[in-house]
Amino acid sequence: MLDKLFDPDVVAVIGASRTEGKVGHAVLKNLLQGAGHQVIPINPKVNEILGLKCYADVLDVPEKIDLAVIVVPAAAVPSTMEKCGQAGISYVVVISAGFKEASLEGARLEREITAIAGKYGMRMVGPNCLGIIDTSSSLNASFAASMAFPGNIAMMSQSGAICTVTLDWADRIGVGFSKFISLGNKADLAENDFLELFMKDDSTAVIAAYLEGVKDGPRFMDVARNVTREKPVIIVKSGRTAVGSRAVSSHTGTLAGSDAAYTAAFRQSGVIRADSLEEMLDYSRAFSTYPLPRGKKVAILTNAGGLGILTADACHSIGLSITSFEEETITKLKQKLPEAAGLYNPVDVLGDASPQLYEHALEVLLADPNVDGIIVLVSPQAMTDVPAIAQSLIKMVKTSDKPILCNLAGGMRIAAGEEILNQHGIPNYPSSERAVASLKALCDYSSIKVKEHTTPVTMPVNREAAQKIIDDAIANGRRTLGLESLGLLTAYGIPVVQSRMAGNLPEAIAACEEIGYPVVMKIISPDISHKTDVGGIKLNLVDAKDVEHAYLTMMSDVKHYMPNAQITGVQVQQMVTGGKEVIIGMDRDPQFGPLLMFGLGGVYVEFLKDVSFAVAPVNDKEAQHMIASIKTYPLIAGVRGEKPSDIKAIVDTLLKVSQLVMDFPSLAEFEMNPLMVMPEGKGCLAMDVRMTLRNE
Amino acid sequence: MLDKLFDPDVVAVIGASRTEGKVGHAVLKNLLQGAGHQVIPINPKVNEILGLKCYADVLDVPEKIDLAVIVVPAAAVPSTMEKCGQAGISYVVVISAGFKEASLEGARLEREITAIAGKYGMRMVGPNCLGIIDTSSSLNASFAASMAFPGNIAMMSQSGAICTVTLDWADRIGVGFSKFISLGNKADLAENDFLELFMKDDSTAVIAAYLEGVKDGPRFMDVARNVTREKPVIIVKSGRTAVGSRAVSSHTGTLAGSDAAYTAAFRQSGVIRADSLEEMLDYSRAFSTYPLPRGKKVAILTNAGGLGILTADACHSIGLSITSFEEETITKLKQKLPEAAGLYNPVDVLGDASPQLYEHALEVLLADPNVDGIIVLVSPQAMTDVPAIAQSLIKMVKTSDKPILCNLAGGMRIAAGEEILNQHGIPNYPSSERAVASLKALCDYSSIKVKEHTTPVTMPVNREAAQKIIDDAIANGRRTLGLESLGLLTAYGIPVVQSRMAGNLPEAIAACEEIGYPVVMKIISPDISHKTDVGGIKLNLVDAKDVEHAYLTMMSDVKHYMPNAQITGVQVQQMVTGGKEVIIGMDRDPQFGPLLMFGLGGVYVEFLKDVSFAVAPVNDKEAQHMIASIKTYPLIAGVRGEKPSDIKAIVDTLLKVSQLVMDFPSLAEFEMNPLMVMPEGKGCLAMDVRMTLRNE
Repeated sequence: MLDKLFDPDVVAVIGASRTEGKVGHAVLKNLLQGAGHQVIPINPKVNEILGLKCYADVLDVPEKIDLAVIVVPAAAVPSTMEKCGQAGISYVVVISAGFKEASLEGARLEREITAIAGKYGMRMVGPNCLGIIDTSSSLNASFAASMAFPGNIAMMSQSGAICTVTLDWADRIGVGFSKFISLGNKADLAENDFLELFMKDDSTAVIAAYLEGVKDGPRFMDVARNVTREKPVIIVKSGRTAVGSRAVSSHTGTLAGSDAAYTAAFRQSGVIRADSLEEMLDYSRAFSTYPLPRGKKVAILTNAGGLGILTADACHSIGLSITSFEEETITKLKQKLPEAAGLYNPVDVLGDASPQLYEHALEVLLADPNVDGIIVLVSPQAMTDVPAIAQSLIKMVKTSDKPILCNLAGGMRIAAGEEILNQHGIPNYPSSERAVASLKALCDYSSIKVKEHTTPVTMPVNREAAQKIIDDAIANGRRTLGLESLGLLTAYGIPVVQSRMAGNLPEAIAACEEIGYPVVMKIISPDISHKTDVGGIKLNLVDAKDVEHAYLTMMSDVKHYMPNAQITGVQVQQMVTGGKEVIIGMDRDPQFGPLLMFGLGGVYVEFLKDVSFAVAPVNDKEAQHMIASIKTYPLIAGVRGEKPSDIKAIVDTLLKVSQLVMDFPSLAEFEMNPLMVMPEGKGCLAMDVRMTLRNE
Repeated sequence: MLDKLFDPDVVAVIGASRTEGKVGHAVLKNLLQGAGHQVIPINPKVNEILGLKCYADVLDVPEKIDLAVIVVPAAAVPSTMEKCGQAGISYVVVISAGFKEASLEGARLEREITAIAGKYGMRMVGPNCLGIIDTSSSLNASFAASMAFPGNIAMMSQSGAICTVTLDWADRIGVGFSKFISLGNKADLAENDFLELFMKDDSTAVIAAYLEGVKDGPRFMDVARNVTREKPVIIVKSGRTAVGSRAVSSHTGTLAGSDAAYTAAFRQSGVIRADSLEEMLDYSRAFSTYPLPRGKKVAILTNAGGLGILTADACHSIGLSITSFEEETITKLKQKLPEAAGLYNPVDVLGDASPQLYEHALEVLLADPNVDGIIVLVSPQAMTDVPAIAQSLIKMVKTSDKPILCNLAGGMRIAAGEEILNQHGIPNYPSSERAVASLKALCDYSSIKVKEHTTPVTMPVNREAAQKIIDDAIANGRRTLGLESLGLLTAYGIPVVQSRMAGNLPEAIAACEEIGYPVVMKIISPDISHKTDVGGIKLNLVDAKDVEHAYLTMMSDVKHYMPNAQITGVQVQQMVTGGKEVIIGMDRDPQFGPLLMFGLGGVYVEFLKDVSFAVAPVNDKEAQHMIASIKTYPLIAGVRGEKPSDIKAIVDTLLKVSQLVMDFPSLAEFEMNPLMVMPEGKGCLAMDVRMTLRNE
């Protein structure tokens, strides 16, 4: 797949230029510096560029062109693409800008060239990109200032400038890449395609990406789930805080913001999310260099006590454990370390430690089964031979089956040592905190790699009954579903509270007598979403007199607070006690679709914002994870001898809601609030639910 | 104060050596490279070192020595110090190691030399330190590998290696220091002394420190409160996660850990806490270079969209606001910026932006009253002249009254620009996130500087009555105070629930009749701290029959759960409803003394660990801050139209508890749980309290 894109025999540069400084010149020059491919410039105005015969048109070229790099002005791209299609070219890289990113006319042009590519079965990178680089095939089809060093990191970026920054950073410290792709506007080929490619690419061990969005959320999750089983994927996703333009009325929508779906989707599909370019590159280098640790038990080796303590602090705060050593380890360390040395973790070999001492200590620590990974700290003290220690570290890093992350700390006097590490492809993390964070990423991926991705079970449901309720609502022009949506839950096997609707007081009393006391009464109005605020909920009504009083007060209160609200009637329900209130919600994310939310009800959701998210469909593991990852989980799991709540019943409900929102894309918003969860074994009961249908 | 320590006329090096590589040689050489002071080597074995006449003894030196730097072996330090004292030397810097840090014998030696210093009124730096540097007096009384560059940052470090690392780092990028102090074991002079010195030191604008602890917590807070009003103080405090060795039994102790007191003390005294050396140095450079911003409104200027978005994300996540511009700003930007440029925040001058364009945009942004600070991003794209842009930035930074923080992003191709910035003392933050964090530190200090430090008001209390209760307890050999401690609260004007103790059932019934129903009954036992867990609390008893049943059940339950618990009787209390339960606790921190804790009661404290801390004594502002800074504060402040709780009454109670624990150092632990807070204006009521007296 995409083989000839990255390893073409013949490449044409359409818009090649003789003028230095022009993109059409830079691309040509970069391509010529590669090997294994013939390069053909296309430009109707000249006969020769850089010693190569220049053609006016791809259709004039006798050779079969595999890849065309297009650098003509945007307006000329459609006709150029047409010719490429006629010439039977399989791949184009459209570097030209002036498309979707620039104007409405640009967006139209972009749709046009995408259609042309589709018509001829051409695959396209870009438009509006820097180009692509493949170090294993020696292809630089970009206008980057220099060729990337060879390496095992595949990188793709939705921003050309971030390609430039990353390549320039990598050049300074000698970090290499297998493939480097500027995604541009992703009109055709996008992150999903390249993820699949990178997975199968033998020269790639680590995948890094800067993304501003994904093109197809559900497919991204499918692809990423597969890829992350094989290779680590580290992504910086920017735009965390962009305010969504949609109006949101549900808790889920409000609490999710624009980033919750990405966070959930990345977590669910095993993607490691980096918070900055620095983190992305730090982690990528770690994966590029080190074997995966078996666990989270860290040894710290230092020649400076203070640095050791700071590093231990960093490990602790990030969730790595400062391991305890075997008795034998201490004994062996004692044999060669000076008397004042620190033998316990952090191991302090003292300020005058020789390379041999570092090596000895490292050997001993590596042999300890309680050590999964090591952070080595070197401060340039009076007697410290930093370059020699760097040499020792190389030897140890290259032969060890455990990761050894280094922080030569300082400036001038560690520069030579740093250079030596870089030359051998070993990162020197500029701070111990960054080494620790990178080790944590290695540990996280160790867990991700072995994580099972079970497919959701399909529950037996009465889909037809649910369909009918929705169809009726649509037929009646209703967007917000009230009491009838409890019937929808019943159709999906979710137990619901006994409940009746009543249009007036006599009906209300009759309904209560039917359900049996005590009951709860709630106002029904399409205009009121927070019923409590307007006196629209009355609890614990024990007889008809209570019901009458409650009804009259409620009507007067509601009219007082919201004089214009349209009131359909009241809902009376059996009063349920002894359970815990939780909330299950769903909001449609524009990228990933149905985003489920779980939280404890009431104040916990509204004021502590203590909720968790997952993209549907979820399986039981993911449902359990959602429940267990809220901070107030102990309140559900049972505290102080209190019985645990029926977590199995919540999982079951989450799975059914997941299935419901997958089955009915017309459900735009869903909120079950509260779902009353009884003690273990006693199930749960949906008390209230609110659904909104999509505006068709 | 300490003038001649940093600007001596005559300095002696005791233990000076001819041998290169020896500390006694390095110190001498460093001193000789300075100016304005005469240097005298002391060594009984030689007559001359480095061309200087060498004396056998300080007592032989005819000149009046101001400062002696001691590098003799630890065992010889006491006799050396005696001679220094006899010679009338005012200051010694003891570089020699082998003291408290090494062994018990070393600790004894350290006490000995401290006593000698005290006897002669000598002030001592160290022992076990690297020495001191003062760039304004041209003094390098250390064995550091090089002299620090001059600058306005004063730095002190409790770790010699961290001095080395910092100096070496600073050398590489040209960061300068006013004074540089290796604190060593802090046997005499410590952080508090130097903080006071730095405050008055004209050459110092910023104070940075690496500390592993403070010598005198309360004095530290007093001093730091004063200093931070004048100059920013940035401290890395390591050992966050060290497990305290004391056994703790209270909530406050358990939740505080070893770090809460430092966090609280730093916050209360205006110290900016850095989480890593990198942060400390980043922030220090920002303070060293920039004026303080008036607010938190940030403009981002970039030549790369992607970097701009990442930077906006970083601002948002750290609490800086991405400002909106005046209409005029947009108009002026539009005049010179290309059509495709981004005119709103972030301002994107596009990839080919010239230095002039950067300058124009900066001028316009600086003129906007909605801009308090600017982050400038430069990516090295094809047409980017990074060094020229760096030159423009220097001009703007130097003349602006708003901070402009720079991130030239990349490696090779920004190196020259970075070098230019460094040469002009302007930091290039290697990532935009670090620039943003540093700008945030500037903003934080803007608030700290103007913060009022009111002294706690003294409340009218009956101290004698309280004293008597404590004396009685001590006289009776009781360490844990039960019901009688409610009397202690009453003495301090804290309203307490009506309550009686009863030794048997008839007494219990009589007490209840006296208080009036409904009542609550609680077990009293020195062995039981969590009464609920053992059935030791019964609520809502409405008559004598209820009381009898509750009493019998409780006794049987408690015996079942804790057969060996000693039971003193029961406590009966008026039953209070309609309030919110909060908890006020106190634990003695070894460094800072009484550490107050506040939180919502019950599950919030135990499972959400949602509590706040402050070192007593607190004033009303600090008490208010404690209350407002818990996450569940909205539940107290009133949510969803619910009446707010009586926050004034909580503040009042916190102030009284603060006074109580200050007045009685013998109170080791204090926990009021719950304090029932009624709605606004209705006060609060202590429901239960537990105090532990110090083991004398």
